[in-house]
Amino acid sequence: MSLASQMVRQVRARDPRAIARAVTGVEDNEPWSDELLSLVGPVDDDSLVVGVTGPPGVGKSTLVSRLVSCWREQKKRVGVVAVDPSSPFSGGAVLGDRVRMMEHALDPDVVIRSMSSRGRLGGLAAAAAGAARIMAVAGCRRILLETVGVGQSEMDVTRLADVTMLVLAPGMGDAVQALKAGLVEAADLLVINKADYDGAHVLARQMESAAVFPRPLVMTVATTGQGVEHLLQTIDRVAESIARSGDRGKRRQQAWATETMARLLDLLQPRLQQMLDSEAGTFSSEPRVAARELLSRFFGGDQK
Amino acid sequence: MSLASQMVRQVRARDPRAIARAVTGVEDNEPWSDELLSLVGPVDDDSLVVGVTGPPGVGKSTLVSRLVSCWREQKKRVGVVAVDPSSPFSGGAVLGDRVRMMEHALDPDVVIRSMSSRGRLGGLAAAAAGAARIMAVAGCRRILLETVGVGQSEMDVTRLADVTMLVLAPGMGDAVQALKAGLVEAADLLVINKADYDGAHVLARQMESAAVFPRPLVMTVATTGQGVEHLLQTIDRVAESIARSGDRGKRRQQAWATETMARLLDLLQPRLQQMLDSEAGTFSSEPRVAARELLSRFFGGDQK
Repeated sequence: MSLASQMVRQVRARDPRAIARAVTGVEDNEPWSDELLSLVGPVDDDSLVVGVTGPPGVGKSTLVSRLVSCWREQKKRVGVVAVDPSSPFSGGAVLGDRVRMMEHALDPDVVIRSMSSRGRLGGLAAAAAGAARIMAVAGCRRILLETVGVGQSEMDVTRLADVTMLVLAPGMGDAVQALKAGLVEAADLLVINKADYDGAHVLARQMESAAVFPRPLVMTVATTGQGVEHLLQTIDRVAESIARSGDRGKRRQQAWATETMARLLDLLQPRLQQMLDSEAGTFSSEPRVAARELLSRFFGGDQK
Repeated sequence: MSLASQMVRQVRARDPRAIARAVTGVEDNEPWSDELLSLVGPVDDDSLVVGVTGPPGVGKSTLVSRLVSCWREQKKRVGVVAVDPSSPFSGGAVLGDRVRMMEHALDPDVVIRSMSSRGRLGGLAAAAAGAARIMAVAGCRRILLETVGVGQSEMDVTRLADVTMLVLAPGMGDAVQALKAGLVEAADLLVINKADYDGAHVLARQMESAAVFPRPLVMTVATTGQGVEHLLQTIDRVAESIARSGDRGKRRQQAWATETMARLLDLLQPRLQQMLDSEAGTFSSEPRVAARELLSRFFGGDQK
């Protein structure tokens, strides 16, 4: 039996160390990781991948921790992939987030993994997708992909989810930016956290009136747990309606394409870099022209 | 005379509207932008591109604004490319940064441009590189590339600079992270801003003892201007030593490669995406296998 198939067997048996090792191997692109993921296969229909996005400081991690608690009350196994801001600097928030998730650290039915996007092109989305698939095979029925809405690769992560929620909070002046960036349109449901703060209802009305298609909007206070049960029901309701409409298949297809593209970029970049470094002298001194020249060599000369 | 050559003439004549239009055109990849940049050429030896990186909250923008003032006292024209955190959300800090730079907004000899990396793969570095080249042709002798150390594309921006400084501040617990991330090694000089805060000297000692090769370290208080003159001299001194050692040529070569690769990724991604979308059914259901299949079709079938 190959190492990969042995590991998949251990992952299916929910061995925490095997799960951690499998995810790490995928993140590090270990030689056995392709075979492992082939054996793992796509996320099955019993598991739901829930994307959580929103700016720093709105309380996403506290909310995620609350959602985990609620799902655990329902006896569901839960996976969390927390994508750190890609900064090489931790900042204060990340540590705080980790502390907030600590309450679940000893629960064997909660699988938590944090990832950073630093230094990778597509790698983050590829690794997050792989981690979600491993967690599904390890019996997690709800898998949360939490990401600060920072950077292309983090945004890709939301394209891996079956359902995506956008979390905002009053008094951060982000509503307009979120709308401009098309994030409200991209989200399946909106959450106004810190609903006990001034301006929460104004923000809710802004969001509701601005979205072209109305979206479910839930008000929460993650620190007290207020509204979290309602959020949970809303997630399930939205997920069911997506599944019924046939959109779930489309989203899984999109997740496949996102993971494939992410992996492709990871494979491609070192090759391009090598060609650029080793044959630098043969390219135009104008980078824009050189880029087209390099592209032609790749594509076989018939590109413009 | 083509539109591009007309615009370059106006840029050389330092027409602020032409400069702004040229940079916007490069950012948006207007059809004329390749020709424009070919005419603009690389940054010449009279201009110095200075990268400023460091975590949020250390006072980079205030420091940049002070440096601009000092260079203006020396009658140098100055360009600033400020790379916003790539979040689709503004956050409070960005607005504050803009306000801090406002003091130079009416100075015709200061060219300021802010850019966001959202939604682009290589585009940010390509756009920042193009902007720096346009600013050089527009007579800017110092061009600052300011970036929060967030994300791959922002990190690329520092690879466009002749000299890079890493700005840290006491009490943020970032020293260890900065070291781990290799940022101290990547920087040519270290700046401890907020030097009047507790812990500034401890941080300075940590940085000095941790770097494998010693680097100039300057203590500043950007809010009062303390140490900024010394920083300015240090930048010039380091730049001269880089130029004397022949490293400047290497760095310009690296900037060329970074801009070329960034541009290439921008050209490549839509093509890959199109192939993936239109022929999705012909690829493996396993993304990692599909990525290799897609790569083979690109490379002409002889890839593993």
